[in-house]
Amino acid sequence: MKKPLILVTNDDGITAPGLRSLVLLMKEIGDVVVVAPDSPQSGMGHAITLDSTLYATKMSSDFGASGVEEYSCSGTPADCVKLALQELLERKPDICVSGINHGANSSINVIYSGTMSAAIEAGIEGVPAIGFSLCDYSWDADFSQAKAFITNIVKEALDHGIPKDVVLNVNIPRLKTEEIKGVKICRQAKANWKEKFDKRTNPMGRDYYWLTGEFELLDKGEDTDEWALANGYVSLVPTQFDLTAHHAIQAINNWNLK
Amino acid sequence: MKKPLILVTNDDGITAPGLRSLVLLMKEIGDVVVVAPDSPQSGMGHAITLDSTLYATKMSSDFGASGVEEYSCSGTPADCVKLALQELLERKPDICVSGINHGANSSINVIYSGTMSAAIEAGIEGVPAIGFSLCDYSWDADFSQAKAFITNIVKEALDHGIPKDVVLNVNIPRLKTEEIKGVKICRQAKANWKEKFDKRTNPMGRDYYWLTGEFELLDKGEDTDEWALANGYVSLVPTQFDLTAHHAIQAINNWNLK
Repeated sequence: MKKPLILVTNDDGITAPGLRSLVLLMKEIGDVVVVAPDSPQSGMGHAITLDSTLYATKMSSDFGASGVEEYSCSGTPADCVKLALQELLERKPDICVSGINHGANSSINVIYSGTMSAAIEAGIEGVPAIGFSLCDYSWDADFSQAKAFITNIVKEALDHGIPKDVVLNVNIPRLKTEEIKGVKICRQAKANWKEKFDKRTNPMGRDYYWLTGEFELLDKGEDTDEWALANGYVSLVPTQFDLTAHHAIQAINNWNLK
Repeated sequence: MKKPLILVTNDDGITAPGLRSLVLLMKEIGDVVVVAPDSPQSGMGHAITLDSTLYATKMSSDFGASGVEEYSCSGTPADCVKLALQELLERKPDICVSGINHGANSSINVIYSGTMSAAIEAGIEGVPAIGFSLCDYSWDADFSQAKAFITNIVKEALDHGIPKDVVLNVNIPRLKTEEIKGVKICRQAKANWKEKFDKRTNPMGRDYYWLTGEFELLDKGEDTDEWALANGYVSLVPTQFDLTAHHAIQAINNWNLK
């Protein structure tokens, strides 16, 4: 059987330990090409580069894992996927995996996530895609605990196929492998961030802000990703890019619109 | 009756003609505060500024429309809304309007849109929100044709309330007011961009790319925003930020996951 072609990307940049771990795991499953940002792109959402130039640099063969073709790209995660699919890959990949992100992309964080924007971009272009995130923001996070789950999910996705126009958002709790209870298929929990802006004054006397915030879970459901993660499960949320709120159409049809 | 408080923002920047038009329209309806990017932010998706500082500058009273408080912000459209709601506004606004964007944000463009990311951010924080876009990319676009529709939609939204966790994505065709047939409540059309990267070589001999592309409509439905716009209607898509693909959960539950 022909080996699957796997496109690996992320938003923490091509040198991030989470991406390096994912590359090694994917090498066990198929042929791997990496196209990842040349610098961290966290919080980039689904940004694309419209008004500026894009560079793609082929990494030398002694960078990274042997036998893996790697490119660093000056753009956003979504740019990386576009460039990979249109310019850099010789054929359409069988799957695109993004991550492993350093930090959770559960619940509302999917909206801000560069990791998931790469996966969603692949999905829009008809490539099955999964974003993986470990609930540990540390650069030294231990990604080894996540291995078995990631391999299993990617293999099952290749076997069964991901439903059309759906991409998977997988978050892995910061637990030892043997402590993780399994994978739970979930819905996205309702949540938001209670922003706190840390206001400071720069040396020139001008005020500026740092964006900080506290995560606020607004959903007591036991079928959510936040519940799964808090209870020792890997969460898997099938995610779509048709944002239509069909349930709201009826109410708005009764407005007095011209 | 107390006048509604209206937050106005956009992604083309505080000086954009589309925003200036929207400010004047909103002044007829309520008290207006503007918090908008200090430079163009098109294609920013739902990016937020995590690793950098944010500046907000109160504009002088002779800038813009009289009686309107305006701030320019160094961040993304989503940053502008966060900063407005947490730091700059004295109370929660009754509605947030974003735009008028210079160019369409229909169908899949909602994913890349800074205009819509501002509206979605407001929605996440519990503020009713609408993004307005005119299907004309020109800086000199004629926004006057859109006036009556925008005023009507904002007033109806204030009267009826926008359904919870839903924001409105309104696109206006490039037609004269009398040619526009009315407002159609739609679903998001399935579409994508067939990317073409324009590859060039810089003066130093290094290759780079410009992202260009052709829009590809993959949806023949007559209930979509693309159909509405092509047939002379203003399109209004109720849009949600719960991305869960509920219809896909059942299939994935049958995978052999650990």
